[in-house]
Amino acid sequence: MGDPANEEDPMADDGAPTFLADFATLSGFGATERGGVHREAASEADDRQWAWFGRWLADRGFTVVHDRIGNQFGLLERTPGAPYVLVGSHLDSQPFGGRWDGAYGVLAAAHAAHRLAGTTHALNLAVVNWFNEEGSRFTPSMFGSAVFTGALDPGAALDTRDPAGIRVGDLLAASGRTGTGAPTLADIACYAEIHVEQGRVLEDTGTTIGLVEATWAARKYALRVLGEQSHTGSTVMADRRDALLGAARLVVLARELSDELSGTGAPLHTSVSRMTVEPNSPVTVAREVTLNLDLRSPDEQLLARADELLHSRIAGIERSARVAVEIAGSHGWGVQPFPAAGIDLAREVADGLGLGHRRMPTVAGHDSVNLNGHVPTVMLFVPSVDGISHNEGEHTTDADALAGLDLLTGVLRRLAAGEITAG
Amino acid sequence: MGDPANEEDPMADDGAPTFLADFATLSGFGATERGGVHREAASEADDRQWAWFGRWLADRGFTVVHDRIGNQFGLLERTPGAPYVLVGSHLDSQPFGGRWDGAYGVLAAAHAAHRLAGTTHALNLAVVNWFNEEGSRFTPSMFGSAVFTGALDPGAALDTRDPAGIRVGDLLAASGRTGTGAPTLADIACYAEIHVEQGRVLEDTGTTIGLVEATWAARKYALRVLGEQSHTGSTVMADRRDALLGAARLVVLARELSDELSGTGAPLHTSVSRMTVEPNSPVTVAREVTLNLDLRSPDEQLLARADELLHSRIAGIERSARVAVEIAGSHGWGVQPFPAAGIDLAREVADGLGLGHRRMPTVAGHDSVNLNGHVPTVMLFVPSVDGISHNEGEHTTDADALAGLDLLTGVLRRLAAGEITAG
Repeated sequence: MGDPANEEDPMADDGAPTFLADFATLSGFGATERGGVHREAASEADDRQWAWFGRWLADRGFTVVHDRIGNQFGLLERTPGAPYVLVGSHLDSQPFGGRWDGAYGVLAAAHAAHRLAGTTHALNLAVVNWFNEEGSRFTPSMFGSAVFTGALDPGAALDTRDPAGIRVGDLLAASGRTGTGAPTLADIACYAEIHVEQGRVLEDTGTTIGLVEATWAARKYALRVLGEQSHTGSTVMADRRDALLGAARLVVLARELSDELSGTGAPLHTSVSRMTVEPNSPVTVAREVTLNLDLRSPDEQLLARADELLHSRIAGIERSARVAVEIAGSHGWGVQPFPAAGIDLAREVADGLGLGHRRMPTVAGHDSVNLNGHVPTVMLFVPSVDGISHNEGEHTTDADALAGLDLLTGVLRRLAAGEITAG
Repeated sequence: MGDPANEEDPMADDGAPTFLADFATLSGFGATERGGVHREAASEADDRQWAWFGRWLADRGFTVVHDRIGNQFGLLERTPGAPYVLVGSHLDSQPFGGRWDGAYGVLAAAHAAHRLAGTTHALNLAVVNWFNEEGSRFTPSMFGSAVFTGALDPGAALDTRDPAGIRVGDLLAASGRTGTGAPTLADIACYAEIHVEQGRVLEDTGTTIGLVEATWAARKYALRVLGEQSHTGSTVMADRRDALLGAARLVVLARELSDELSGTGAPLHTSVSRMTVEPNSPVTVAREVTLNLDLRSPDEQLLARADELLHSRIAGIERSARVAVEIAGSHGWGVQPFPAAGIDLAREVADGLGLGHRRMPTVAGHDSVNLNGHVPTVMLFVPSVDGISHNEGEHTTDADALAGLDLLTGVLRRLAAGEITAG
């Protein structure tokens, strides 16, 4: 029957039951009917969970501080002046997304740090909830950690607007989610993050822990297709400059590149997932369509080949649809390895706990990708049932979630001892 | 130098200078930087032009009345109890549309009726500004005239919402654009409308007047593509159910049908111009896309063949993109001839004025399409430079606009004499 009083006392047993109860509470913010969450960055649900998480940290002795872009930190300074081991992830979600994506890693970080709160370490501990990792409301994704590491200009980030024209800086100011006194990159000795896999490798191989060794390479484009507004009925077909036709051919081209090149060895993942049509009227040929187009592969040469084909075929689409295709923006990265020392350390902790593990890449981006290269970074995965991701049906079992928490606690203890630091 | 006092007096000379000055005033409502207008139905700009037009009518002795769906009438009852000759078009525009589309026909109708105001006729005169002809904000198009003729249920029409969720009935009530005492279909003896061509036939053939003899046949679909939300990076390509890929293939299919079938004789115009993507996030495969798909042809058999091919190929798209394509709605019409008596009457008036004319179809829908079949209907065109339509660059010359006004006045005079009535 358990002890109800024990479950209701937030300061009580910080083991499995408390973690799972806290996770259930967290999953209530923006909960959807089908078991997911709907809490995009700086939404009302995100603000509420941010406030709840701040109280959770403060109640346990963490010093809660924020930086100017809304990253939320809980500091445990036991060794004055020493750098921090930073550990965390993000609480925001995709629209109608899963409960575990990001939120699991933030809560596991907080519980792991809290477990170590009673002891002194060479390094201090800092838990982080990065702002707007998902990027669905404010582009780009991994937003808060990009500002933290200098990849994104803070002024430009604050001036970013959502599709309704609402500015990040105004939202953060209104909710009181910014502040001073937060650690900066210079204060960080190393970073750790745990996340659900978002794929099926661990499940298919019966493995509990993924030791992430590298990020896939990626090229991401913001494209603008320019046509000419005209009547969908009366305009002669040969006269049309249909921006939506051009955009549709780009969507099909992205899939064709994957179909053609994936058979040659390494996989190539391609996608178009966002599209805005102007004027989007039932009787007017579209004058302009904006869309994103992503290419990802673990093989940099294959990615380069896909990128080359993409560019060469755009010209054909411009001719056939009588449109212009502009590259409004692009960014990308190569295959980025995570430090071997961190992988080895995490492997030893997993072995000590009797948890099965395997080295693997991450296809999805994470805040750890921004930190990696600046400070020694450890990235860990736990299994995700059927690999379902960015979907309300996303799920990780309690046993796997708790195994990950134990692993992260062990990793954090060794990182706090100063086993791996920069330089 | 002209007489400024004359231009400023709204009651003065009702010839060419006044018409053009009034048209310039009308074009100022919702004027865009590039010479077009942006005044969708019940927008602030549409409300202002509606109020201006009501005053224009009232100042000249018209009795201004409205029906429950926001159609605006100006009545000139000189023969108590006699039915009305109805003449008009619509003042609303596409987003960033042309100045002439619809507005020309409404103002020409008002000026033509005003020119005849001093004389008595067998029939009474009624000018009409139909509500929401464009259908860009509230679907379907030709909305007000569809309610007037019974093709659209009034309750359903009032409950229609724009993309922001705003209800037609609430907007009309707030602006006072509804009323009682308006004529109904039973009070109408016949209908006439003049419109810019929205094509290049008149310009290419050096003709001033188009005598519209028929409407192209059309099939219009509202389609919903159902996929499954997942991560654009980590989801294995073979596992994806990408609704946007399915939608893109439908856009390409629509164009392919035209490319394949137009060579066989009659033209086939196809289009997709509106698309809504959910969740429209940069890192989430789309779970649902809604779109419109239109097929139009002057050849009913060709249209039936295109419709058959469309349906047969949807199954292939469902398989290749692993999505379901649902037909959420559809409507259509066959080739609809306009009455020969009206064409003959208009031709005689044009001959009398020395205006070149030709019989031609209309591809675009007009409010006259809704009236046709219920009451004898006369549909007239004037040229449109380069055939530009639903675009800020739309233009008709002053000479053509004034020629059309003279023609409409002559047609209206003969219709008011009772030359063509139902039965």
